[in-house]
Amino acid sequence: MPGTLKALKSTLLGKALGDSAQESERYSIKWGLPILSSDAISSVAYACEEILLVFVPVLGLLSFTPMFGVVGVIIALLFILILCYRQTIDIYPEGGGAYSVARDNFGPISSLISGSALIFGYVLTVAVSAASGAAAIVSAFPDLASFKVAVTIVFIVLLMLGNLRGIREASIIFGLPTYFFIVAILVMIVTGVGKALFTGTPVDIEVTFAQPAKDLTLFLFLRAFSSGCSALTGVEAISNSVPNFKEPAQKNAKKTMVLLGVIVFFIFGGVCLLAALYQVTPLSNITVVAQIAQAVFGSGSAMFYVVQIATALILLLAANTAYNGLPQLMSLMAAHHYLPHRFADKGTRLVFSNGIIFATVASVLLIIFFEADTHRLIPLYAVGVFISFTVAQAGMFKHWVTEKSANWRQKAVINGSGAIITGIVCVVIGGMKFTQGAWMALVAIALLTFLMMSIKRHYDGVSADLALSSSEVRRLVFRQAPQNHVIVPMQTINRSFVKALNYAIGLGGTIEVYHVGTNAAVTEKLKENYKELHLDVPLVIDETSYRNINEVLLKHVDAYANGLKEHETLTVVMPQLMVRKWWHYTLHNQTSIFLETALLGRKDIAVVMIPYLVD
Amino acid sequence: MPGTLKALKSTLLGKALGDSAQESERYSIKWGLPILSSDAISSVAYACEEILLVFVPVLGLLSFTPMFGVVGVIIALLFILILCYRQTIDIYPEGGGAYSVARDNFGPISSLISGSALIFGYVLTVAVSAASGAAAIVSAFPDLASFKVAVTIVFIVLLMLGNLRGIREASIIFGLPTYFFIVAILVMIVTGVGKALFTGTPVDIEVTFAQPAKDLTLFLFLRAFSSGCSALTGVEAISNSVPNFKEPAQKNAKKTMVLLGVIVFFIFGGVCLLAALYQVTPLSNITVVAQIAQAVFGSGSAMFYVVQIATALILLLAANTAYNGLPQLMSLMAAHHYLPHRFADKGTRLVFSNGIIFATVASVLLIIFFEADTHRLIPLYAVGVFISFTVAQAGMFKHWVTEKSANWRQKAVINGSGAIITGIVCVVIGGMKFTQGAWMALVAIALLTFLMMSIKRHYDGVSADLALSSSEVRRLVFRQAPQNHVIVPMQTINRSFVKALNYAIGLGGTIEVYHVGTNAAVTEKLKENYKELHLDVPLVIDETSYRNINEVLLKHVDAYANGLKEHETLTVVMPQLMVRKWWHYTLHNQTSIFLETALLGRKDIAVVMIPYLVD
Repeated sequence: MPGTLKALKSTLLGKALGDSAQESERYSIKWGLPILSSDAISSVAYACEEILLVFVPVLGLLSFTPMFGVVGVIIALLFILILCYRQTIDIYPEGGGAYSVARDNFGPISSLISGSALIFGYVLTVAVSAASGAAAIVSAFPDLASFKVAVTIVFIVLLMLGNLRGIREASIIFGLPTYFFIVAILVMIVTGVGKALFTGTPVDIEVTFAQPAKDLTLFLFLRAFSSGCSALTGVEAISNSVPNFKEPAQKNAKKTMVLLGVIVFFIFGGVCLLAALYQVTPLSNITVVAQIAQAVFGSGSAMFYVVQIATALILLLAANTAYNGLPQLMSLMAAHHYLPHRFADKGTRLVFSNGIIFATVASVLLIIFFEADTHRLIPLYAVGVFISFTVAQAGMFKHWVTEKSANWRQKAVINGSGAIITGIVCVVIGGMKFTQGAWMALVAIALLTFLMMSIKRHYDGVSADLALSSSEVRRLVFRQAPQNHVIVPMQTINRSFVKALNYAIGLGGTIEVYHVGTNAAVTEKLKENYKELHLDVPLVIDETSYRNINEVLLKHVDAYANGLKEHETLTVVMPQLMVRKWWHYTLHNQTSIFLETALLGRKDIAVVMIPYLVD
Repeated sequence: MPGTLKALKSTLLGKALGDSAQESERYSIKWGLPILSSDAISSVAYACEEILLVFVPVLGLLSFTPMFGVVGVIIALLFILILCYRQTIDIYPEGGGAYSVARDNFGPISSLISGSALIFGYVLTVAVSAASGAAAIVSAFPDLASFKVAVTIVFIVLLMLGNLRGIREASIIFGLPTYFFIVAILVMIVTGVGKALFTGTPVDIEVTFAQPAKDLTLFLFLRAFSSGCSALTGVEAISNSVPNFKEPAQKNAKKTMVLLGVIVFFIFGGVCLLAALYQVTPLSNITVVAQIAQAVFGSGSAMFYVVQIATALILLLAANTAYNGLPQLMSLMAAHHYLPHRFADKGTRLVFSNGIIFATVASVLLIIFFEADTHRLIPLYAVGVFISFTVAQAGMFKHWVTEKSANWRQKAVINGSGAIITGIVCVVIGGMKFTQGAWMALVAIALLTFLMMSIKRHYDGVSADLALSSSEVRRLVFRQAPQNHVIVPMQTINRSFVKALNYAIGLGGTIEVYHVGTNAAVTEKLKENYKELHLDVPLVIDETSYRNINEVLLKHVDAYANGLKEHETLTVVMPQLMVRKWWHYTLHNQTSIFLETALLGRKDIAVVMIPYLVD
């Protein structure tokens, strides 16, 4: 009952917006950048740690040199992706990213695969980012360690509420923290590098490592690379959200992508540099970034807490990236009949509420199952995102080769290289992380693809079923006054019943009032009261010894309906109480709502709901 | 939309039961005992551990002697409670326990306090028992340690499904494991004691304890006692569920209570004896019972796994106790208007489905918040249960003193002593556990009490609002044919629209077909198609540039309704698609359901739903 929670909704989410409010709900570069690139920027909060997590157990203090190799490759990959996606924005101003590209260039199946991969990736963005944000908070306030799952879920629910309020307000609420994080991390990098240069690393680290068991192998390098690729998730968010930018939307989106690349280069590179300078290694319950901040600023210092809070906030923004991209994508796919149509409906605040709620429920389930543990979630993450990258770039390549527009050769080379590189990365990640969780990602994406195909088949079937051919239209007969039969169920004689009965009498036709009695004395009294109404509408009563009133009523209605002739209709008229406070709706009408659904479902019966407003 | 999930429901829950199936859904002693006393019996799986958890950090290996003191007091308390509750069963054959007793003897406020305390206690029974069951499984299969929250939630959901199927099937599914557990533990006790007597304790335990820091103090003893009292929760379940027993229900319930006492005495005492003989102390990730089973049978032995699985199963049954008691209690309180009336409705399987679902949701939230950690949940637990014990016994005391029936003096002494003892225990637990979580329990119980008072006030207000005095009844006028206005919203011309329009025409009065257009070309085509129907019903069209069709439609209906004269009614007729598979309902009708609720809520508008069955 979406409408019944109206009052609660307007308190939490703000008043419903009028139609004309639509245009102003769009991003400038200033706000689009922090909201849509926070995923990639915030990745430093965990990607550096994930890389070290692979190297350190094997290489110990020798981990930092290969780490720079991995980081270099990842940043190079980032710039390739940015080049590729700038070309995508040119061709697809309406957003949709990998899904739209695949749909136009390859057809339904591959578009569904990339769409599923994107949906799965977005949900994991929410889960991983919220869990990492909670990890940052737990690093600063260790007393919260035993409530990490709850903290993560609270973060997700707050994001949901913020997004249900609508995107412009979201810009202001969610935009500032990215700048705050960028400044905090840059200050940390400058201070940290300066300190290391002029005074040496301040703490003499006395971690004793076992002598490296093995040398660096290609296998180890690829595993670390696969872990680090989680840093690249979210790059496609800008290209999927082009319609959310202010005009000129495409130009603004492309500028934003370049800015993203520059910022990630400095922040990700700088943090990894600090990790090497201060020889930080992964520990449980305190993140790598938190350890760096402790080493640079001192463990109880104000700046340590500033960095932790900034990290938590930008990670929430990263989760928010998905809250912007996912509902948009789902609405597009719903308009194509691959998802329930409700995902295409804008709510009272002009946002795709159902997509927002879906993102919340799915990510909370992941958080519960993986107990908000980032390290266990990340192996599921990158493979889906790289599947969609690959499909999108391959689609763009096909576009240039088919269209042969200006400069098509150069553009085809860029997107073609992008497709090959991301395809290779996809296989690497799938292989390296298969047993750790990538298999779950692949299964989930396959199931989602299958589900969306079934939904489409269903909608197509229903449309065909409902369609009228023009010859049928010519033969249609509208009856002027069919014989109508009306049943008015009654629990007790009160104002709402009287109103319903009055309406039923207005309908004309054969009317009966129907009551299910559970207590002989009460029934007797009711009969007397009914007589006092002096109506010529018969009162029909059935008795039952248990309180399964609905069941008895449905049987009676069934029997009545079975006795009808063709062209006679049966209508059941029921009162519905309307109350002022939203929570009062939890207290009423459950019987009439149940009966309405049951009646509509079982027989060809029209159901009339008569509202009665209670003061 | 409860009815839309019908097909899924009948797969998961079994077919709907007829009215006459009610009587057979009752317990014999043989099945009532395992289902209703599993909570108390299973308590050995954690109560012994909770006691040691208080003593061991302070007293080390000297913990076992005071442990027997605590266990002795708790078992004595158990027999006092059994004596007291046998007298309650005599007087209250309809169940309801503390709530009914307080209601009869003290009035609404204290009945609500004890009702709230019982509800809170039941929810914690589910949470604590499911979490302990998961702990038993994790002890046997340590690989699952990182999925403990998920395992716990799966347990709770399985219990919910089992209970929604109905209580007799529940007996058979859920009855056997208690006997299995009793046998497994008795075998363990006999083997363990025999081994200790004849061969000495098999393992030389070399745990090194710090020299006890302090002597046993009264404070320490009381803290351990407060922890151990979790063993007594669930004793009232039998007395609350008397109507679930076969006739003679009271006699059967009383016999079951005595059997419960005897079994707990042997099992609880025996396990504590083994803990002392084998000097087992609490560790994380392996329970005390698991450690005992390892010591007695060997750590990889079949019997070790048997004990762990039996423990997990009986703990699930203990959670199931609450699934039996809570919905019954909530239905009683709903019938008294303290809870939403839906809690008093029996579902298609003749169980109180809403109470079962409530128990699930509430306990899952607790599990997520406390990360399935038994030690953190237990401090919340016993205080609520002992509040209800105290109120119930005080109420019984008042009953005897007021009624002065046969043997009233003796009976008053028993219940009076019960009230004083449980009252003292209540204060002890509240004080000892206050900062660890008892404060949350007290706050929750207070809030629940307040909420239920508000609900009652609301229902009373609505009844008064709806009531018709006899003078009003005499003045009632039923209009024969009011002027009716009908709006039929149309998205497209198809079969379901034609059916709705046909019904609308049958209603008579002024009719219009209303369409919200978002695309000029589509609208033009629709107009042409409409003309082909050759109707004299006008087609009214509004245009909007965004897809907020519902909003525009509601505005139009509002304007129409505002223009009506008194005694004219406005009816909106909408088609509703009926589909064969339950999941197809997620794909349809969201617009008509939204509009129905919105229309009923905002204006005095009747809403007619016309079903159209899609094949």
